[in-house]
Amino acid sequence: MESKKSISIMGAGLVGSLMACYMQKRGLKVNVYESRGDMRKQGYVGGRSINLALSTRGWTALEKIGIDEDIKKIAIPMFGRVIHQKDGSTDYQPYGKENEAIYSVSRGDLNKKLIELADQFEDVHFNFNSFCQSINFEKNEAEILNTETKSNFKISDDIVIGTDGAFSRVRESMQKLPRFNYDQYYINYGYKELTIPAGPNGSYLIEKEALHIWPRGEFMMIALPNMDGSFTCTLFVPFEGENAFDDLTDEQKVKDYFEYHFPDAIQLMPTLIEDFFKNPTSALVTVRCYPWHKNNFGIMGDASHAIVPFFGQGMNCGFEDVRIFDELYGKFGDNTETLLNHFELSRKENADAIAQMALDNFIEMRDLVGDKNFLRKKHIEHLIMEHPSYNYTSMYQYVSFSNEPYAFAYQVGQKQTKMLEALSKIENIESKIDTEEVKQIVSSHL
Amino acid sequence: MESKKSISIMGAGLVGSLMACYMQKRGLKVNVYESRGDMRKQGYVGGRSINLALSTRGWTALEKIGIDEDIKKIAIPMFGRVIHQKDGSTDYQPYGKENEAIYSVSRGDLNKKLIELADQFEDVHFNFNSFCQSINFEKNEAEILNTETKSNFKISDDIVIGTDGAFSRVRESMQKLPRFNYDQYYINYGYKELTIPAGPNGSYLIEKEALHIWPRGEFMMIALPNMDGSFTCTLFVPFEGENAFDDLTDEQKVKDYFEYHFPDAIQLMPTLIEDFFKNPTSALVTVRCYPWHKNNFGIMGDASHAIVPFFGQGMNCGFEDVRIFDELYGKFGDNTETLLNHFELSRKENADAIAQMALDNFIEMRDLVGDKNFLRKKHIEHLIMEHPSYNYTSMYQYVSFSNEPYAFAYQVGQKQTKMLEALSKIENIESKIDTEEVKQIVSSHL
Repeated sequence: MESKKSISIMGAGLVGSLMACYMQKRGLKVNVYESRGDMRKQGYVGGRSINLALSTRGWTALEKIGIDEDIKKIAIPMFGRVIHQKDGSTDYQPYGKENEAIYSVSRGDLNKKLIELADQFEDVHFNFNSFCQSINFEKNEAEILNTETKSNFKISDDIVIGTDGAFSRVRESMQKLPRFNYDQYYINYGYKELTIPAGPNGSYLIEKEALHIWPRGEFMMIALPNMDGSFTCTLFVPFEGENAFDDLTDEQKVKDYFEYHFPDAIQLMPTLIEDFFKNPTSALVTVRCYPWHKNNFGIMGDASHAIVPFFGQGMNCGFEDVRIFDELYGKFGDNTETLLNHFELSRKENADAIAQMALDNFIEMRDLVGDKNFLRKKHIEHLIMEHPSYNYTSMYQYVSFSNEPYAFAYQVGQKQTKMLEALSKIENIESKIDTEEVKQIVSSHL
Repeated sequence: MESKKSISIMGAGLVGSLMACYMQKRGLKVNVYESRGDMRKQGYVGGRSINLALSTRGWTALEKIGIDEDIKKIAIPMFGRVIHQKDGSTDYQPYGKENEAIYSVSRGDLNKKLIELADQFEDVHFNFNSFCQSINFEKNEAEILNTETKSNFKISDDIVIGTDGAFSRVRESMQKLPRFNYDQYYINYGYKELTIPAGPNGSYLIEKEALHIWPRGEFMMIALPNMDGSFTCTLFVPFEGENAFDDLTDEQKVKDYFEYHFPDAIQLMPTLIEDFFKNPTSALVTVRCYPWHKNNFGIMGDASHAIVPFFGQGMNCGFEDVRIFDELYGKFGDNTETLLNHFELSRKENADAIAQMALDNFIEMRDLVGDKNFLRKKHIEHLIMEHPSYNYTSMYQYVSFSNEPYAFAYQVGQKQTKMLEALSKIENIESKIDTEEVKQIVSSHL
């Protein structure tokens, strides 16, 4: 009798837990090593934003393994964004057509659910308080340290995958190999989590089924709904300079700042000052590297392509990694190196594309108010998208509501930018959407 | 009596040893920690190319501290490049005007000389077999491990500078700090050192006072003269693909390859096969990072900006770092953070510029034969440079024969490229150098 193939997964985060589900389904013996304790007992100790936006790519990966219904129970659809102007007025922009929505989920709840789902299988074993201390690539061995027992031991598997996040230890070992390209890039903005608590009886004090944005040009705040009626707000502000974190040093300054820039929000934030000084100011990194494997060791998710959160695609991209890996396992599962080679070849350009789109989208979100020229282009795009003459899909829709490769969405987006530039020069375009002139411009760009 | 300020320098390479000379002159107590043994006793164990090209920036830094004459004794001037065509014929291109030359020096000899020069001072202490194991930035403490005695101890100084090269341990500690931008980028080429031995009585078998290039489009070989009559050759070849290292797997293949591509050189290389299989194939990395300091800890030289060797500027840039650091020490020596802050602000854009120019120059060197359009532009540039009507300084001259900032040289180079593009469209330009048409184009670009 042939013994089962084995995989070790380093990191029991979102991607690692989902990967465990997929790999056990492929008949592998799965060990997951997680440096933190079991979050089902200890609660989630977040290093990053507490809310995430699940969109089509994420759902597709959950569906394929039949756990989407479980997750839908803990997700809130957001059909569009509510823009909060400085005068307290609001505008609404739908994300897509008809019922297209992205879904707000709690990172902690989702992660716990995925661990639960994976842990029910006999062939999946979670090892908490354990992490990959070092790797001997030549011997295909990793050394694991258990921080509770202080013992360490060696593992050797058919496949070892690092899903250990933006500060991956598996990648850190790879970085010392010759010819490993690596780039970690921080934008000059930090973020801080704040909260809008639930109203009476768990009611929502602002529109529930939307992502809220307070765009202010050089900085912004967003808010996503939670199941309990509260909203998790995230403030994105430069570290240094005007209206920057290094200037918000005392209670009065924070109060003045919010009253001036976010007058409608501050009324809903009774714990603002407490939250502001208790919660850390975190940095935002983009990680690009290549290759993503050495011998039997590979990386995926944030470990290979951490991105900024402005397109809400970090988790979705990681889940798509898992789905594509599984597809390739079907073809190349017999040979780990071939498998990992095809995986990185097929995913790298897509990871690079979403990394760039996420950086670009920060500017878009901050500028949603203010830049008249930008708003006009958005308006024109919406007219084209809604008009029955066109079968127009925006870059945003390709990214959020399709499974088309990110690299394709990026290329289309580049063309759409040029198209909107051309269309924005037409006066009174609102009355000309159906004309040959406009049709010509649209078709020549797409 | 006020006690002397102290500096620790991590790495006794070229930049670290020169830095020790400069800092003792400023009245500091200097400790140098070097992970390898004392190369004066053990010989130089090279990790990178054995020959280096000292040019103006390097000499300026040596002059300022009065050790240029010592070094000149072990340096061979190279006034131009000898291009070896595939048919065995050669062309000569002078590097600059009149007596402008770059100088071939042995990395090992130069390093030993610099250690000797620094070590003669009472206030400079070299600690070999010792390296910086970890850094506590908050406490401004570093832990040093002595690999001979296996003992470790803590140091705390007014300034600590990492001059520990492209794979710097000081930088590795910084990389884990939040908001540290870091990029390591390998080109797809490897290099291998080979040799052309001296002729009878230490004679030179090819032109002594020149840098030799065998440009072959997708790959190339170069050779620099040594004091003993030999030449150190470096072969730059892709790792994979046609005419690549992964194809040169046995003696016959290497012999065929050299006979076909370097027929004049192979006759002078009796130990080719032995050298080829004994010497390692090394990779070529560019490192970009920022910031270059945290509290009292800074980095300079390759540790902060490793570059590819194709402009011969790695050491020169590192020596310029030392000279500029010393200048800034004169102004800001009282406050280490201010000093390190000004240092990185003034050097970063210049390091980025030479990193890019070094990458670009690889293409130039490989294409010296073959690309007719490129050769025509080089020819036109030379006509302009030589003509009394123009006071033209090429980018190459700014980089190699001036102390103008690299960033300035890069900007000028961009304009010169456009200028040469425009000039190359003029037919029979040789007879029109002095015309208004040409003068107009030149002056409008510079």
